[in-house]
Amino acid sequence: DLMRAVAAHFAHGPLAGRHVLVTAGPTHEPIDPVRFIANRSSGKQGFAIAAALAAAGARVSLVAGPVALPTPRGVDRIDVETAAEMAAAVARTLPADAAVMVAAVADWRVDAATAKIKKGAAPPALSLVENADILAGLAVHPQRPQLLIGFAAETGDLLEKAKAKRARKGVDWLVANDVAQGVFGTESNHVHLLTAAGTEDWGPASKAAIADRLVARIVETLAE
Amino acid sequence: DLMRAVAAHFAHGPLAGRHVLVTAGPTHEPIDPVRFIANRSSGKQGFAIAAALAAAGARVSLVAGPVALPTPRGVDRIDVETAAEMAAAVARTLPADAAVMVAAVADWRVDAATAKIKKGAAPPALSLVENADILAGLAVHPQRPQLLIGFAAETGDLLEKAKAKRARKGVDWLVANDVAQGVFGTESNHVHLLTAAGTEDWGPASKAAIADRLVARIVETLAE
Repeated sequence: DLMRAVAAHFAHGPLAGRHVLVTAGPTHEPIDPVRFIANRSSGKQGFAIAAALAAAGARVSLVAGPVALPTPRGVDRIDVETAAEMAAAVARTLPADAAVMVAAVADWRVDAATAKIKKGAAPPALSLVENADILAGLAVHPQRPQLLIGFAAETGDLLEKAKAKRARKGVDWLVANDVAQGVFGTESNHVHLLTAAGTEDWGPASKAAIADRLVARIVETLAE
Repeated sequence: DLMRAVAAHFAHGPLAGRHVLVTAGPTHEPIDPVRFIANRSSGKQGFAIAAALAAAGARVSLVAGPVALPTPRGVDRIDVETAAEMAAAVARTLPADAAVMVAAVADWRVDAATAKIKKGAAPPALSLVENADILAGLAVHPQRPQLLIGFAAETGDLLEKAKAKRARKGVDWLVANDVAQGVFGTESNHVHLLTAAGTEDWGPASKAAIADRLVARIVETLAE
């Protein structure tokens, strides 16, 4: 709209005029009207990155799963619940100069029941269906962002798994974090950045500090 | 402790000297370190009831699943995650004069994996195990509260299902609400109260108003 266009025109900062997509939070996949499968994700790291991008002058589209977080200043937020809704929302935000895909998207959805499943003699068998891979899909999209960044939460053999994931997903950078030590919902994190040039250990840091460092790298790369 | 004993001694209100247990919120049952099965429950109705009980002078033990709500004034809160943790916490709060079991407890837990389940060729089969029934267990407990109140969230044939549930669970009162119309997370609700005397339609009302009305009935009944 006009106000936004005017604001963007006068935006300052190294990312002024750039559009960056961020996904954050978990997705919820309904089992029935009262039950769902969720991923453990507070959304804090993704929201911190969206805030840092906006502070750097970017136009930010933040596609957020169900989280209890306020919208960062200057960020366009699109709320979704399921992985399918997130995939659709991501597609609608394109084109974008860069995408930072932090959301913990469910790998599977359930063939959901429309009525509440009753307790019976035996527990029900949950029939799982694989969700479309949003990150891998974006990597081969006709409007693929110039800089595509994925996140990986892993337990054990973190870097081996992350290297394989970076190649498999077709992303430029992969931010890997070890979730064995309970980072969920906390303010700090320990990540490694994997790029074509190699792997960097960023050490323990606050989610805000990781966001600032990542955004500084995005600024450098988009300026090249 | 002493401060609490002194406070209780000077407590005013019709429930002064009474101990009431309230459960609220969902439970989360881990699938692996990053995924879990949850029930849709904001905890708002249970927290409103705990607040109303404390305002009426009761000592309130609130066993709460994972929710994003502040602790009501004057309430003792015990935070839990899984149904098994909730069952253990409930047992530790006994004896109680009354119990209002509002939590949406998971009927099943998953044989949880200790490492993150990887996406493979086929979606994993989730092996579900039935959880102990906290409400039915409390109904036959040696320290069963004098007044035991259950909640039922149902879709379709609400009152038939609720009547059967009241009998099956061995509770004194059952508060039934129809969750087909999306009450989750909202401030209002529409409940029916089922007692030995019959069924009352309480009509649409705020969760705070339902809490006040229920607590007024608890006061009457415990005074008999």
